[in-house]
Amino acid sequence: MSITHPKGFLASGVAAGLKSTGKSDVALVANQGPSFASASVFTSNRCKANPVLWSQEVVKDGVVKAVVLNSGGANCYTGPDGFQTTHQTAERVAEHLGIGAGDVVVCSTGLIGLMNIREHLLAGVDAAAQALSADGGQAAAEAIMTTDTVSKQVVVESRDKTWSIGGMAKGAGMLAPALATMLVVITTDADLTADELDQALRAATRVSFDRLDSDGCMSTNDTVTLMASGASGVKPSVDEFTAKLSEACTDLALQLLEDAEGADHSIAITTINAASEEDAVEVGRSVARSNLFKAAIFGKDPNWGRILASVGTTQAAFDPADLDVALNDVWVCRQSTPAEDPAQIKLDERDVTVTIDLKSGDATATVWTNDLTHAYVHENSAYSS
Amino acid sequence: MSITHPKGFLASGVAAGLKSTGKSDVALVANQGPSFASASVFTSNRCKANPVLWSQEVVKDGVVKAVVLNSGGANCYTGPDGFQTTHQTAERVAEHLGIGAGDVVVCSTGLIGLMNIREHLLAGVDAAAQALSADGGQAAAEAIMTTDTVSKQVVVESRDKTWSIGGMAKGAGMLAPALATMLVVITTDADLTADELDQALRAATRVSFDRLDSDGCMSTNDTVTLMASGASGVKPSVDEFTAKLSEACTDLALQLLEDAEGADHSIAITTINAASEEDAVEVGRSVARSNLFKAAIFGKDPNWGRILASVGTTQAAFDPADLDVALNDVWVCRQSTPAEDPAQIKLDERDVTVTIDLKSGDATATVWTNDLTHAYVHENSAYSS
Repeated sequence: MSITHPKGFLASGVAAGLKSTGKSDVALVANQGPSFASASVFTSNRCKANPVLWSQEVVKDGVVKAVVLNSGGANCYTGPDGFQTTHQTAERVAEHLGIGAGDVVVCSTGLIGLMNIREHLLAGVDAAAQALSADGGQAAAEAIMTTDTVSKQVVVESRDKTWSIGGMAKGAGMLAPALATMLVVITTDADLTADELDQALRAATRVSFDRLDSDGCMSTNDTVTLMASGASGVKPSVDEFTAKLSEACTDLALQLLEDAEGADHSIAITTINAASEEDAVEVGRSVARSNLFKAAIFGKDPNWGRILASVGTTQAAFDPADLDVALNDVWVCRQSTPAEDPAQIKLDERDVTVTIDLKSGDATATVWTNDLTHAYVHENSAYSS
Repeated sequence: MSITHPKGFLASGVAAGLKSTGKSDVALVANQGPSFASASVFTSNRCKANPVLWSQEVVKDGVVKAVVLNSGGANCYTGPDGFQTTHQTAERVAEHLGIGAGDVVVCSTGLIGLMNIREHLLAGVDAAAQALSADGGQAAAEAIMTTDTVSKQVVVESRDKTWSIGGMAKGAGMLAPALATMLVVITTDADLTADELDQALRAATRVSFDRLDSDGCMSTNDTVTLMASGASGVKPSVDEFTAKLSEACTDLALQLLEDAEGADHSIAITTINAASEEDAVEVGRSVARSNLFKAAIFGKDPNWGRILASVGTTQAAFDPADLDVALNDVWVCRQSTPAEDPAQIKLDERDVTVTIDLKSGDATATVWTNDLTHAYVHENSAYSS
């Protein structure tokens, strides 16, 4: 049920012919209120797709009444004509729902530079508006899939079961970076202001989507939109809401990790005893971006030297002569010198852990990534052809 | 003949059993003088191998009389015992040549964290010292190969043929970054001071090795050492020498590019009309590090959207709505909108060019990289096993 689990939301997913496979490709999510408070975060890529340029303006007043999403074309680098497509999409949604186009967030995903998706997309909006229903969550989650092999959905209940959070996501990447565009819609029937939602969303994405670094590439289209209907009539504290929202975002992030393009392994890189959380994230991200390390994990090779070589490229506080590193909890390196035998490390399971002890403070952070596989190269060498 | 082409140098390469294949793995290059001026640059990785820690001290006085290099083990993250190995290697070379150990640069390449190479290495030094000869350039160049499929050598003559530069290199990477350690030894019989050599070497590496970004990974062992014997008796101007040195370094860099691990394509990314050379390099490097773009080139897919998505991650000066991009000189994107038909681009040849017009100034720079292939993943998933 995901996004239609919280009270006050309708959703749908329909096939509009944008995908050559004929699978569903247009999703619509509508907030029925009584509140229309919202918060959003977007890609930090400077080359933003038209839907992002549009939606950044839409969300400024904290009010979002609907989100329309399409797969089958990113509508990025399509010029003024592409912006018109986004604008007309929002207008069409607004007509159907009797709201203003300025309250409609638009999200697109697919190939960059692809023109002429407008006609199909607008017809898809018509169909999606007709199909809106209180059990449309599953259909919507399926309509936003691209290279995803499964839909990603989550429901988190408040402790006293008086309100809940629902979410859906697509993509094999992350907020920043990753080019396999990440689109996330989150709904809640809790009653919070736009400012409170913004505070909670930034806190939750910082420790979830922002720490997923599948392939180091940053999409032009990444969008996360959170809408609160207030339909439960319950006003939780921001702290309580943030905790539940973080749980939902982390759950979705790990679903994305599990289904990343071509990946054989899900790798959690935890940096401990860092001087700051920023240092810990920088170190984790450097390892997550090492093609050499990621290829070694694909080959089930416990090549820990490649971890240290990545750590050495950062500005984090540490003594290069006093680093400890563990792979799957086997401390293969102590004080920057070989320690336990790497041969005892089995990398047959999907989940792999890397632990890096910087011995420079008490901050910790985990960054998630995948291995670099033949299948990744294959999928991404044949995407547009 | 490469490094033994300039007058005043002897070299050798021998098999010492460090490589399991039995191929040659220890090289020695000795400067016979009369001058012993030198300059070196090292990896900027903070996690440096023991030979780099040693050699950084050796080069401080501007005098280097010999360089000893081994493949078959990087001697990195091997602790105090590994540093002793490097120290004893320099001592052994010094004994044979009747010089001080403090004038001997040591370079190593191979697996990180591999202990117990000392015995073989010292025996290799004995053999290499015996084998030194004025035609040893080829043997030395072969002894430093690891995953290289061919040796890399260069000779550049001065315009009036009175002095020359010789060089050898190994590696599938670059000075910063790339983990397939790059080791380069350059010799000249021109007569320049250490300060002049340093000035020339920094200028030459900045536009050659520093602009090679094969896989975004930075080695712990990268070293470039330039030795000048002064044996020609000719003192060229620094400008004249820098020009010839840049020619030699660029030639070696392009040889490395051609032989990069598993690569099918050599890609030259040229950024034009940038506000500064730094901007142009930043933009080129961002594209060179996009796994998605590199996988597309492997698949012969002219997916130019991935170029723009990379450009958008930089801080360079440009208007995101006014970028032009060409692939193999076909301008597929003008003013950030689709232009010429990408279907006419054939990517069957090894060489591929990308041109990015930032329309923000008059600076230009080229960064070189390779595609991301199945063979890259295969080689790097099986390196230590």
